[in-house]
Amino acid sequence: MRASFYISDGTAITAEVFGHALLSLFPVEFKHHTIPFIESTEQANDVNRKILESFQDTGLRPLVFHTIVNPEIREIISDSAGINYNFLNQFVAPLEKALGIEAKPEKHRTHSIHEKTYDIRIDAVNFALANDDGVNLKEFGEADIILTGVSRSGKTPTSLYLALQYGIKAANYPFTEDDMQDVLKLPSVLKAYKHKLFGLTIDPQRLHQIRSQRKANSRYASLQQCMLELREVENLYRRQNIPFLNSTTFSVEEISAKILAQTGLERRKY
Amino acid sequence: MRASFYISDGTAITAEVFGHALLSLFPVEFKHHTIPFIESTEQANDVNRKILESFQDTGLRPLVFHTIVNPEIREIISDSAGINYNFLNQFVAPLEKALGIEAKPEKHRTHSIHEKTYDIRIDAVNFALANDDGVNLKEFGEADIILTGVSRSGKTPTSLYLALQYGIKAANYPFTEDDMQDVLKLPSVLKAYKHKLFGLTIDPQRLHQIRSQRKANSRYASLQQCMLELREVENLYRRQNIPFLNSTTFSVEEISAKILAQTGLERRKY
Repeated sequence: MRASFYISDGTAITAEVFGHALLSLFPVEFKHHTIPFIESTEQANDVNRKILESFQDTGLRPLVFHTIVNPEIREIISDSAGINYNFLNQFVAPLEKALGIEAKPEKHRTHSIHEKTYDIRIDAVNFALANDDGVNLKEFGEADIILTGVSRSGKTPTSLYLALQYGIKAANYPFTEDDMQDVLKLPSVLKAYKHKLFGLTIDPQRLHQIRSQRKANSRYASLQQCMLELREVENLYRRQNIPFLNSTTFSVEEISAKILAQTGLERRKY
Repeated sequence: MRASFYISDGTAITAEVFGHALLSLFPVEFKHHTIPFIESTEQANDVNRKILESFQDTGLRPLVFHTIVNPEIREIISDSAGINYNFLNQFVAPLEKALGIEAKPEKHRTHSIHEKTYDIRIDAVNFALANDDGVNLKEFGEADIILTGVSRSGKTPTSLYLALQYGIKAANYPFTEDDMQDVLKLPSVLKAYKHKLFGLTIDPQRLHQIRSQRKANSRYASLQQCMLELREVENLYRRQNIPFLNSTTFSVEEISAKILAQTGLERRKY
């Protein structure tokens, strides 16, 4: 299998995203190697040895995606035995022309710390944890958004992703069976925050499968129970005009991006 | 201020990462707009209107970074009033040549759901939550890594990032004052898992500042207490050969990437 290397003097997240996006267009598998924080010529030479070894072992030239700010180190890696792609280079000159200013690559600014956004995100994570699963209602006023849905419909991972990626404070509130003795009504604690509500739903079969992994053969996990709960929450969303999303076929990135697009919620970090 | 648009028929995460990496090389500020899930020609025309409006309002041609798989939609956006950058295009032909196969862009594979990796990540998030703050020791055998450190040294956000981004199961264990009556020793519950331990530390001043936001003027937040606790944990890390990292100047992405690089821990998701 051909190897693909992602190399940087920073986290290498940009090189990974860039490489993955390109490689995902090809119906082939690759062996991935991420090598971040290459900050000395010695380390760079070590990396080149690994690339050469991979070439010798497989007979296939490795692909090398790199974003390296330090020119000396960049030159070493650009000389590797692999096929080198440095996507920044190709775009810098046209962008300089378009903006009428020169690029000033200082160091990795994209995934490194920014005093302000750091605190925002950690605060948002702490908020999501403190306001998970309806345990704490007194901070709902502070929430940017309140995710609702039945147990295991994806509320917690989504709230954490919104916090870590965008610095958004997401509380979440689970609808439980107790709320559904009769017809599910909007719980009174949520009424004041109706404008912040966003509903998640999921296909009954999938929910049944997820809950069964947790508590096999329970009433909680039964398909019948899943269908009942989901019917009730979806009816509530429609009746109350709460925007909602079926998360079944979406990744947590997609769910989060869709929530932002659907609600117009402003992210705190870019 | 010049606007920068990130547009895609998927999440637009790739377009954002690509655009941000490039723009971070320039000492200018931009107004960012992410527009994901553009899936119809109508939506694409709407986007072009927004781009044109921004141009008219500011007198500055917006930058438009896009990764669009659907050719019809891609063509519309490529015709916008902005300066268009489609980074995939430029690299597809050379990569086809290098690999000797044709690209088969089906749809967005990078940030969409993969049945297998989805479960891995959600499982890992649930694991991190269930094993946060040393509340649950019985699953440490299942952990890929156990983060240790004093209160507020970054264990929880890091464990959640490792879970969401890499599918890694990270437990965490806080060293508290009770452990430090005398000299801090390795708690007996951790001894069997010593090979999984990774220590976080932080500068006393910064810890003092973070704890003060939480509990101002407490002994817990006092600089003296922070210094004492940090000295104890760092001594322990050194004595026990536990790999560790000072997180003070690093973002959660950097801390996570450094942990992977330093431990050689295999990620479960690429």
